[in-house]
Amino acid sequence: MTRRFVVIGGDAAGMTAASQAKRMAGDALDVVAVERGRWASYSACGIPYWIGGEVAQVHDLVARSPQQHRANGIDVRMGAEAVELDVPGQSVTVRDVESGSRTTLEYDEVLVATGARPIRPDLPGIDGAGILDVQTLDDGRRLLDALASGRRVRNAVVVGGGYIGVEMAEALLRRGLRVTLVEQAEEPLALLDTDLGRRVRDGMEKAGVTVLRATAVTGFEAGADGWVRAVSTTAGQVDADVVVLGLGVQPEVALAEAAGLPIGDNDGLRTDPRMSVAPGVWAAGDCVEVRDRVFDRWVRVALGTHANKQGRVVGINVGGGQSQFPGVIGTAITRFCHLEAARTGAMVAEARDAGLDVVVETIETTTHAGYLPDAEPMTVRMLAEKGTGRLLGAQIVGGRGAAKRIDVCALALWAEMSVADLAMSDLAYAPPFSSVWDPVQVAARALCAVV
Amino acid sequence: MTRRFVVIGGDAAGMTAASQAKRMAGDALDVVAVERGRWASYSACGIPYWIGGEVAQVHDLVARSPQQHRANGIDVRMGAEAVELDVPGQSVTVRDVESGSRTTLEYDEVLVATGARPIRPDLPGIDGAGILDVQTLDDGRRLLDALASGRRVRNAVVVGGGYIGVEMAEALLRRGLRVTLVEQAEEPLALLDTDLGRRVRDGMEKAGVTVLRATAVTGFEAGADGWVRAVSTTAGQVDADVVVLGLGVQPEVALAEAAGLPIGDNDGLRTDPRMSVAPGVWAAGDCVEVRDRVFDRWVRVALGTHANKQGRVVGINVGGGQSQFPGVIGTAITRFCHLEAARTGAMVAEARDAGLDVVVETIETTTHAGYLPDAEPMTVRMLAEKGTGRLLGAQIVGGRGAAKRIDVCALALWAEMSVADLAMSDLAYAPPFSSVWDPVQVAARALCAVV
Repeated sequence: MTRRFVVIGGDAAGMTAASQAKRMAGDALDVVAVERGRWASYSACGIPYWIGGEVAQVHDLVARSPQQHRANGIDVRMGAEAVELDVPGQSVTVRDVESGSRTTLEYDEVLVATGARPIRPDLPGIDGAGILDVQTLDDGRRLLDALASGRRVRNAVVVGGGYIGVEMAEALLRRGLRVTLVEQAEEPLALLDTDLGRRVRDGMEKAGVTVLRATAVTGFEAGADGWVRAVSTTAGQVDADVVVLGLGVQPEVALAEAAGLPIGDNDGLRTDPRMSVAPGVWAAGDCVEVRDRVFDRWVRVALGTHANKQGRVVGINVGGGQSQFPGVIGTAITRFCHLEAARTGAMVAEARDAGLDVVVETIETTTHAGYLPDAEPMTVRMLAEKGTGRLLGAQIVGGRGAAKRIDVCALALWAEMSVADLAMSDLAYAPPFSSVWDPVQVAARALCAVV
Repeated sequence: MTRRFVVIGGDAAGMTAASQAKRMAGDALDVVAVERGRWASYSACGIPYWIGGEVAQVHDLVARSPQQHRANGIDVRMGAEAVELDVPGQSVTVRDVESGSRTTLEYDEVLVATGARPIRPDLPGIDGAGILDVQTLDDGRRLLDALASGRRVRNAVVVGGGYIGVEMAEALLRRGLRVTLVEQAEEPLALLDTDLGRRVRDGMEKAGVTVLRATAVTGFEAGADGWVRAVSTTAGQVDADVVVLGLGVQPEVALAEAAGLPIGDNDGLRTDPRMSVAPGVWAAGDCVEVRDRVFDRWVRVALGTHANKQGRVVGINVGGGQSQFPGVIGTAITRFCHLEAARTGAMVAEARDAGLDVVVETIETTTHAGYLPDAEPMTVRMLAEKGTGRLLGAQIVGGRGAAKRIDVCALALWAEMSVADLAMSDLAYAPPFSSVWDPVQVAARALCAVV
């Protein structure tokens, strides 16, 4: 008998699960995916590069079109919003966004992959025209339309200095705008320790971005036509012809919550390692919480790479196999122009807050042999547990070729290696690629002397 | 009482050991380093980039001058050749290369870091002028002198297609020469499986190098002035105004052998994990054999990164600490123009020769999100053990940013991870750095389906 797998949400997690399950189960599984928006399987992470002009067309950001999914046997329904999930009844009620008509889909297995929505703080004037999110391709289109509208758009304000904010500041600079970034914390890019975040700010300021740090937005002023014209902040008013919100996201769990599914302290769905929330009910992507392996606690990390992996885990489990999502260690990476930044594991403050006895070393080096002309500066900070020498975290800031080296630290952390073991491991060396001791090994070696 | 540590050989291994031991032991240790050549602590690996013009001055390749070492309290003696090592008598006889006078140095600890010498096959005409090695800075200087001599130097022949040969072919192209590479094996770059080596050959040929593969050199023809004018090969004669030998190196162990120290099957000194060969006698660098962790066998790998690490191990042990060299896994990396190549662990043929039941996947992808304009092609081959899924090796060929990703594979192999664990680990993702599944994870994921 054919079973039915209903997937709620047609982006990374949902469509990966749908594809994986269909590939494994074939005709024995009827796969229906409902997506309330106009786009499926797209790279939200690519939006800043589309806005900045590095990606020419929105279609370049679409990994697989609904037509392609249908060719693979998946019944993708666009403009179809799941409005009720009946877990005991094993059915999903779906509303056609255009006509308003409702259908009920019975299922054997269901996946909640409803994603997240951008945080829009409850501030005066927040609903003014020209105050935009950059979460979906439609959001990106609205921003590009605003820039191309014929309206004088000269000043852009980015609210929030997380990686989306930093990437959008670059994109808007590339578009020729005057860009101000407003960040509530002491420095932008809270994924780094404050002093390293400061280096990123220095780079942004050198490139021409005005960074208002330790500054809160208090409201938005609109002109007579209702379009934003200024942002009010604790550091004064800033002219704004367009505002981009980069304040992070909130899990979209209303449907799941109404269905009585378990929501965690971080407002995301709680799953078991197989990504199951209840018998026959799965969850994946930005709407779930995941286990942080470093601190052994629940966290929420809205990243496409986790969404894809979780989707694959669900797809394998639904398709008849066995798979588990092993958790995360807080790896992240971003770029501002030619300045790269990355981290994995614990930062200094959070390690100390967690009561860990931590030693820290920071080394300054170059991405490869310093005698070659294109070697770029590179800073590596590394944390280890005093006594055991266990690697606890790392951060990298530097020029081209620096940041992706974080993967070596991430994998060492993943495998619970000590800094002594990392320092002596057999990494690749030739002058165009590394100094004779790889930069992460220089950092690990420095820690060996103090753990 | 002050002990004396005599270091024989003043390059990577020797001077690293000297520096580390002196740093730890201070005044309690008298450190004397003897070097028969004119240079200490230099980057031999940097020679191709000096020849190619990317490195302006020979001094850029010197990490630390004899003066700098002396300022750190190390008695470095240049032009001083160790001619006898008397282990029972705990002394080294040193000959001054210029004057021929001999001195005897008593020691408490001695390090044999005599390195290796380039292989010069016993072929007719091999001693002709213009047939050069690229092992030392003096070798590099001789080659540059030949190119700048006013003599018509138009045709260069590189004998041997290992990484030195490939790097030298690029360097000579950059100098405007017509370059022919002669390689005995089916394809150059034997650090890769043959079909991937072929891609490197394709890249070399596209750049203008003539590659004679499966071709042996049978001799060298000299002109009336004794300078080389052609190379005879099994594929015919090739005009040559200069010849570079890149046939690998042979450990320099005559001194150690005469002293009765243990030489292994690969012609290198056999040490214990602390790099000790006998009580009070240490060895490190290109003259030693090391343990291959993948196949659990002795190998010889002449790489500066191992020499540095081994030197550090010796320095710590002599300086009063405890350190071990953990072995190697065959990680290697090189570049030909913009084509990068790297490997770690087992190649397909050697894994099968060793009787391992191995599964292999090869994936074609890009260095980062394919929709960004500077994404480069990237091929990842990965090997795992059938049944257990243990990662056994990987190879990468691709454009800028591809090859150093081998470190992730190297570290996974080092930590004895399975491809399933690697595929789901938390590596860094953002579009300018990676596809949403990192390329090495795409390969690992492909293997998961077949192990």
